[in-house]
Amino acid sequence: MFSVTVRDHMMIAHSFHGEVFGPAQRLHGATYVVDATFRRPTLDEDNIVVDIGRAAEELRVVLSELTYRNLDDEPGFKGVNTSTEALAQVVADRLADRVRAGALGEGGRELAGLVVTLHESHIAWATYERSL
Amino acid sequence: MFSVTVRDHMMIAHSFHGEVFGPAQRLHGATYVVDATFRRPTLDEDNIVVDIGRAAEELRVVLSELTYRNLDDEPGFKGVNTSTEALAQVVADRLADRVRAGALGEGGRELAGLVVTLHESHIAWATYERSL
Amino acid sequence: MFSVTVRDHMMIAHSFHGEVFGPAQRLHGATYVVDATFRRPTLDEDNIVVDIGRAAEELRVVLSELTYRNLDDEPGFKGVNTSTEALAQVVADRLADRVRAGALGEGGRELAGLVVTLHESHIAWATYERSL
Amino acid sequence: MFSVTVRDHMMIAHSFHGEVFGPAQRLHGATYVVDATFRRPTLDEDNIVVDIGRAAEELRVVLSELTYRNLDDEPGFKGVNTSTEALAQVVADRLADRVRAGALGEGGRELAGLVVTLHESHIAWATYERSL
Amino acid sequence: MFSVTVRDHMMIAHSFHGEVFGPAQRLHGATYVVDATFRRPTLDEDNIVVDIGRAAEELRVVLSELTYRNLDDEPGFKGVNTSTEALAQVVADRLADRVRAGALGEGGRELAGLVVTLHESHIAWATYERSL
Amino acid sequence: MFSVTVRDHMMIAHSFHGEVFGPAQRLHGATYVVDATFRRPTLDEDNIVVDIGRAAEELRVVLSELTYRNLDDEPGFKGVNTSTEALAQVVADRLADRVRAGALGEGGRELAGLVVTLHESHIAWATYERSL
Repeated sequence: MFSVTVRDHMMIAHSFHGEVFGPAQRLHGATYVVDATFRRPTLDEDNIVVDIGRAAEELRVVLSELTYRNLDDEPGFKGVNTSTEALAQVVADRLADRVRAGALGEGGRELAGLVVTLHESHIAWATYERSL
Repeated sequence: MFSVTVRDHMMIAHSFHGEVFGPAQRLHGATYVVDATFRRPTLDEDNIVVDIGRAAEELRVVLSELTYRNLDDEPGFKGVNTSTEALAQVVADRLADRVRAGALGEGGRELAGLVVTLHESHIAWATYERSL
Repeated sequence: MFSVTVRDHMMIAHSFHGEVFGPAQRLHGATYVVDATFRRPTLDEDNIVVDIGRAAEELRVVLSELTYRNLDDEPGFKGVNTSTEALAQVVADRLADRVRAGALGEGGRELAGLVVTLHESHIAWATYERSL
Repeated sequence: MFSVTVRDHMMIAHSFHGEVFGPAQRLHGATYVVDATFRRPTLDEDNIVVDIGRAAEELRVVLSELTYRNLDDEPGFKGVNTSTEALAQVVADRLADRVRAGALGEGGRELAGLVVTLHESHIAWATYERSL
Repeated sequence: MFSVTVRDHMMIAHSFHGEVFGPAQRLHGATYVVDATFRRPTLDEDNIVVDIGRAAEELRVVLSELTYRNLDDEPGFKGVNTSTEALAQVVADRLADRVRAGALGEGGRELAGLVVTLHESHIAWATYERSL
Repeated sequence: MFSVTVRDHMMIAHSFHGEVFGPAQRLHGATYVVDATFRRPTLDEDNIVVDIGRAAEELRVVLSELTYRNLDDEPGFKGVNTSTEALAQVVADRLADRVRAGALGEGGRELAGLVVTLHESHIAWATYERSL
């Protein structure tokens, strides 16, 4: 199995609901350094999994809809705890939608899966992986 | 599949038995930067895999029983080569025991697996993964 | 010259005033990974610059007054752009106050200077350095 | 499952064929920081997956045949796009050949798989994994 | 003293002249992860050293004139050993030219100095610092 | 001012004397990831500060006299607290002796200074800098 990973980041504000979150129930924020991994069992005719430039551009587009925002105010996240792991799924699912819509070309349709990791600090990160 | 990872470290002395270890047969030491990954197929009602604060605290407790010690003098490691990979299993198994005992709450019992990585330097690390 | 550095982090929300900031004028957030460096021309009688454990604890205390907050709502930051470089100075000055008040013991009074770096992402960070 | 990973690097020149590569069609170069992971379901009699020193030496030998070269001039890569993911496979396959030839000793024959990751920058890397 | 640092990268081919370089006399290549630090004794009216977005853009422009090239073929480097430290100076001097030409606005003219670090691998890097 | 930095590591056991050290008074250990920086105001005739390969070799030699040892048993450290900052000075001074003895060639005698950083974990490091 082959994979290619590209890294970017987003900077958001949010708060959490539930006693388990302690002080993170207050409005605060995070930089998420985001790694998106594209998996494919074989290489394409150019000998690549996916063009790294295009993959990076797709990740940038997905993150641009989230970054520099207060997620508590986003209609799509009303009443939702936007935990690191939940946001990893949001990023992965949006990337999957774009791949299926052809954003990575025909070759993108050969991808087997996606893995998205969000690093919230130097000591904590979360991952969501899914098939395509 | 979702996962959450927390990072901590321990600083131990030890020596190895066996010619394969060369100069590492002498008493020496290591800082192990330890990553503990908790895996779960779905998120809980708070939209998380596990509370990152509690996960970090459990890892801290497990490492506190190992750090600042000469492992050659620990009864549990008599005659055992405490290699990086062997210690990864020790940390993972002790975390698993705590999870099963309820240290991460009822939700912790939904965890599917654990992965523990010990970084012994910037150029070498070892991992042990197990189900729960 | 000797120095010792300890690393910790904080997670805050804020917004900026001024066209130069573009989308960062919206309420958003950041994880700041914070490195605090303590400088001293000679070592003390224990052969150290400062006890790493105590230095880490002082940094933790300073960051605990900032983390998990919306800085726009903090009285001390009313009308202030809490840029990465400005926050580096805030952390350094508060650490300096604590050192002068004796939080690092008598030896802390021998420190020559402080350097504080805040990493806002994997591709941007800011530093403030000052004497003591 | 256990694994041990060692890190090394190589510095090569190459160019790519195909419009998808844009400016990377020109002769350019890369430092690849290479992580080679050796996987094994159980530890050997020395309580290790593989001797880290020997694993590092085998990786060094494989990389020494690639580093400080223009890959466009290497007979084995004539007409081949030496993308990061393709080179990950080259390194993994050459390591696999050496392991099967006994370079890691008899214990090396118990290895279940290899994973090789090539980091081409701080924001992009590629991986190839295979069984042994 | 305040500073702001931004990180980007370039990927080039080159060769060196001189026996000291050993195998690096052959045509090979490197990814340089480049950190550009802008220093200023006080903050401007927006409470910043320099806008991080503009600083990143200026660094990108400077690197775009070097990346994806064989430096041996560039007229400006004829007969010059483009070592990591020499390239750090090239990047710093070109950034300095742009700052003095006003690329960072009037505030950019208040900058006191620049530091440029080029990382050629995980185990080697070089720095050039200069005043402005 | 130019500088070149090379990274290596050592793995040692030791214990500390003094209540300030708490549990670190017990025999324990550390991996020190060591960065050695060589500073020079101008480049030599090969357009370098120092050959990176030779610098790395000199660092390796200095660390080989410390690694895989219990520093408590080394005659040179009898009764000495081998703190991270104190060891940074030991490494820097031994490198300086070698440079002055000509280990880096005649050009090495043009070096202006050395900076040595020892990383004891992902959250703590210490530095010693000196002139040459």
